[in-house]
Amino acid sequence: MDKVKLVNDMVKMFGAEKVLQSELERYTYTYDSSFASQQNEYYPDVVVRLESTSDVSKLMKYAWDNNVPVTPRGAGSGQTGGSVAMTGGIVLDLSGWKDIVEIDDANMQVVVRPGIVHAELNAALSPYGLFFPPDPGSSAMATVGGMVSNNASGLRAVKYGATFQYVLGVEVVLPNGDVMKTGGLKSKALKSVSGIDLTRIYCGAEGTLGVITEIRLKLLPKPQSRGIMLALFEKLEDSALTVLDVFKAGIIPSGIEILDDGGIRCANMFKPDLNIPEVEAAIFFEINGTKPAVEEEGAQVKAIAEKRAKSVEWATDADRMAKLWQGRAVIGAASARFKEGKTRIFAGEDVCFPISKVPEALKRIKAISKEFDIPVVIYGHIGDGNMHTAPIMDPLIPDEVTRTHKVAEAIHRLALEIGGSTTGEHGVGFARAAYMEEEHGKALDVMWAIKKAIDPKNIMNPGKIWKLGRE
Amino acid sequence: MDKVKLVNDMVKMFGAEKVLQSELERYTYTYDSSFASQQNEYYPDVVVRLESTSDVSKLMKYAWDNNVPVTPRGAGSGQTGGSVAMTGGIVLDLSGWKDIVEIDDANMQVVVRPGIVHAELNAALSPYGLFFPPDPGSSAMATVGGMVSNNASGLRAVKYGATFQYVLGVEVVLPNGDVMKTGGLKSKALKSVSGIDLTRIYCGAEGTLGVITEIRLKLLPKPQSRGIMLALFEKLEDSALTVLDVFKAGIIPSGIEILDDGGIRCANMFKPDLNIPEVEAAIFFEINGTKPAVEEEGAQVKAIAEKRAKSVEWATDADRMAKLWQGRAVIGAASARFKEGKTRIFAGEDVCFPISKVPEALKRIKAISKEFDIPVVIYGHIGDGNMHTAPIMDPLIPDEVTRTHKVAEAIHRLALEIGGSTTGEHGVGFARAAYMEEEHGKALDVMWAIKKAIDPKNIMNPGKIWKLGRE
Repeated sequence: MDKVKLVNDMVKMFGAEKVLQSELERYTYTYDSSFASQQNEYYPDVVVRLESTSDVSKLMKYAWDNNVPVTPRGAGSGQTGGSVAMTGGIVLDLSGWKDIVEIDDANMQVVVRPGIVHAELNAALSPYGLFFPPDPGSSAMATVGGMVSNNASGLRAVKYGATFQYVLGVEVVLPNGDVMKTGGLKSKALKSVSGIDLTRIYCGAEGTLGVITEIRLKLLPKPQSRGIMLALFEKLEDSALTVLDVFKAGIIPSGIEILDDGGIRCANMFKPDLNIPEVEAAIFFEINGTKPAVEEEGAQVKAIAEKRAKSVEWATDADRMAKLWQGRAVIGAASARFKEGKTRIFAGEDVCFPISKVPEALKRIKAISKEFDIPVVIYGHIGDGNMHTAPIMDPLIPDEVTRTHKVAEAIHRLALEIGGSTTGEHGVGFARAAYMEEEHGKALDVMWAIKKAIDPKNIMNPGKIWKLGRE
Repeated sequence: MDKVKLVNDMVKMFGAEKVLQSELERYTYTYDSSFASQQNEYYPDVVVRLESTSDVSKLMKYAWDNNVPVTPRGAGSGQTGGSVAMTGGIVLDLSGWKDIVEIDDANMQVVVRPGIVHAELNAALSPYGLFFPPDPGSSAMATVGGMVSNNASGLRAVKYGATFQYVLGVEVVLPNGDVMKTGGLKSKALKSVSGIDLTRIYCGAEGTLGVITEIRLKLLPKPQSRGIMLALFEKLEDSALTVLDVFKAGIIPSGIEILDDGGIRCANMFKPDLNIPEVEAAIFFEINGTKPAVEEEGAQVKAIAEKRAKSVEWATDADRMAKLWQGRAVIGAASARFKEGKTRIFAGEDVCFPISKVPEALKRIKAISKEFDIPVVIYGHIGDGNMHTAPIMDPLIPDEVTRTHKVAEAIHRLALEIGGSTTGEHGVGFARAAYMEEEHGKALDVMWAIKKAIDPKNIMNPGKIWKLGRE
């Protein structure tokens, strides 16, 4: 439709203060944290910032009647281009809609609007002794709406699982503007198996099936105590075998993170006083529970790790824990400054391997890095096989861009080849749409059949999950 | 279509030994454990017992081409009529298909066929130190295929959640006979957010979207130790407040079960040497983890319970644990023999309340029981609000049947009224189809849109979740 008319209609419907239309303003919506989005310039025709279900419904009715694509967006911290408008139209910015509608501590749940930031939510829950367990690295910026839409997880998924396990219901504005509530219209129950599980369909649907306007989350009581262990391994395989032995002992740490040798070097360069010995792998365990439970499990994990590790340190003292955890904590920032003049980009950064295949996978990623002469720092959630691989490159050198794309491509293919997934927690967006056929085969058609049933005009976030042109 | 031809075609396609056609044989497929199915006589035209994906695919292609309804069935231990053929056609009995395809202990997962029984699976996993955590009361008979299709949970859901949290992928024969694999064609990953979460759509779809022919499950390491506590409360409210205080302390027991006064009386009558004092509520806690963790959490829970309880006993000795747990263990059998000449039936037996509303709910259920003069024994999973209410009646007395239906109806309505769900773990089947509109509103239409997208001819288990005649 006519872009000027679209902008004018939005201003008429919602007021000028809710509509962004200048090129500069719209430019900031052309990218998220993904390399893929930064390599393109997908401008929305207009950005609308709404904070009520009735306004979102009004917007969707308009979009439906006029066949205008709508791309919902939270913080834009995603790494797959999921919140970027590939075919123009409206970006619906929900990041300002941050209300906590209700903390129902007696029923261990909370109702929030999609724009609330993860860390803000947990800060608000803390006085009640409750928390929302998924723990993304981007906690300080990621919105809960975005977490649900991407089924985010993070550093504690090994014990607590992903976001979908905590979503009890969502309010959704459907593509035609109708409003639906999943999980029961009035429900405050913690469990229900009443009908097809629509709640779960919206976890990870990446805005392709409607706009999430409210979320009811199940909470857990905060653990009483925690401890941190750092174990250093001369051989990568030994680190993976140790992780498996910990599980075999019947212990589930709340976090198991790895830095490989590149990651260790990277952390040390960023913060020289860390001075982590340059072994093949550093494993960080976090254990939580009651104090005696933490002590016992810590002692058991330490004994298991010591069979293979060069050194193991276990701490329950707050300062020492912070010190031990630092290597893991700084790795995101450290990788960005690993090499003068280079930056760390997000591409192929989120594959998940079967945990038994992690050592093989890491060796092959090193080979890929060497083949294309692009350094790749490796870290991530070894407890569930979800690894973060960080290519270090200069986006202004076209040849490096080409080689980086090849690195990402090879890492995605590697994941599929050895029984992994192209995305453990960040989602498909458009960055991984090309791999969906290979990853899912027939199932991708069934996903599309559901998409068509709910969004027959394909106005919700087109080009995500399924490549543009599918329709 | 012609029923004789249907039977003959089945015999031709699969061999006589796989086809049941006599009235007596078919009769045993007219009911499951639900009162609703026992009050009707929904005969299938034919029963086919298959044990391969290619045979199931052949059967579905035939059914698709000939518009024959197909109802998949496991053990028939369901309590909602979910596996009963309401409109005739084929019952597809998968209970003989029990293979464990692969135990992949290094990746903490197992691949099974749908007919394997829950207890058999966990017995096979035990030597590997692994287990499949959901723990239905019907463990000795329920098939894993049925558990997935109903998203079953049970006694340990308070800590471990429901079946959907453990399903990593399913192989499904679609209504037209096509075969699809969810969760990644070759995946052995423990985590993936690649595309719309079809796996979760099949958890709780009750056979309305296709036939599940293979299941890949995530497993957990078996806990090292456990303990059992029995706390008796003069006042029902005090038991619920105690449960909330335990959570507030940051402790998540692996099970929290309740017997109300009727339940206690019932258990005592069945097994007089139990001799549980006739208070308003008995709460059973199970705590698991490392030995020191169990001891510490047990001590903390005991201290919390003692603030309100008449008496508390905590045991970690195997014999004493078994003894304490007996009241909860016998209640299913005990309720069946509560009253000479009466039986316990399954109707309205599975509602889930917000945990803060459990005391109010139990009082109102007692009032309902009184109003219709049908004894109702109450027990269940107070840790997540999922209560089992067992009407005691004589199915041969028409007036008692009428009054029992009214009791079940009133319990379902009560759940909806106070923010609960009509089913916490048993599913909708046809027994609860009448409440779906009230429970879900608009969302039921979206569920139906998905149903139509995947099963446009409505041949998969018609009459379940949505009432017959919806199409």
